[in-house]
Amino acid sequence: MSLVSDPPLYYRLHVFICTNRRPDDNRRGSCAGRGSEPLREYLKDATRAMGLKDLRINSAGCLDRCGLGPVMVIYPEGVWYSFHSIEDIDEILQTHIVKGGRVRRLMLDQGDQPVLIA
Amino acid sequence: MSLVSDPPLYYRLHVFICTNRRPDDNRRGSCAGRGSEPLREYLKDATRAMGLKDLRINSAGCLDRCGLGPVMVIYPEGVWYSFHSIEDIDEILQTHIVKGGRVRRLMLDQGDQPVLIA
Repeated sequence: MSLVSDPPLYYRLHVFICTNRRPDDNRRGSCAGRGSEPLREYLKDATRAMGLKDLRINSAGCLDRCGLGPVMVIYPEGVWYSFHSIEDIDEILQTHIVKGGRVRRLMLDQGDQPVLIA
Repeated sequence: MSLVSDPPLYYRLHVFICTNRRPDDNRRGSCAGRGSEPLREYLKDATRAMGLKDLRINSAGCLDRCGLGPVMVIYPEGVWYSFHSIEDIDEILQTHIVKGGRVRRLMLDQGDQPVLIA
């Protein structure tokens, strides 16, 4: 929980994209195995091209919601998204990152738990 | 910024520890080169041993404050720490993670910028 004495946020938005990779035959799958890495690069390049400076598009190890992946979480708000395409990334960028809104169709709810691949 | 319609936080505390590694002769240095990986393992094991369940001790790629590293950031509050020892980690664990306080001597301020190794 924030305290009034805390310094201002270093990044207005800090985006963590899971780039964990497991072997292809692992039942949990992985976000990198589902294509998270090039989509992270795309988002990073897009924010740079737009000149957005007060944020960071970070890679992260396993966020432990793999079965829903690829996943990202955006702080400080702690909103999670599952994404699968450049169109998904573009919508998160324009709606959430730029305008502070939400992409409801891609958001994870608290009850969304990882599932195993059959 | 949070919206009232956002789901509850999936993790009460989400700790990201930079485990980025650069070659030893890189002037920026790196958090892994300064020992972040075993200290992350120590913190992860300690929280598990204590039975703390509503948090995650994550690895992350470069958080871009390398010269101050090893560094971690704790969300949703967005508080940053520089740490160098098991004693530092224990103090962050007991004071911040368990009690919600702050370890002032290890906190980074907004103006703290990475420095290059001479």
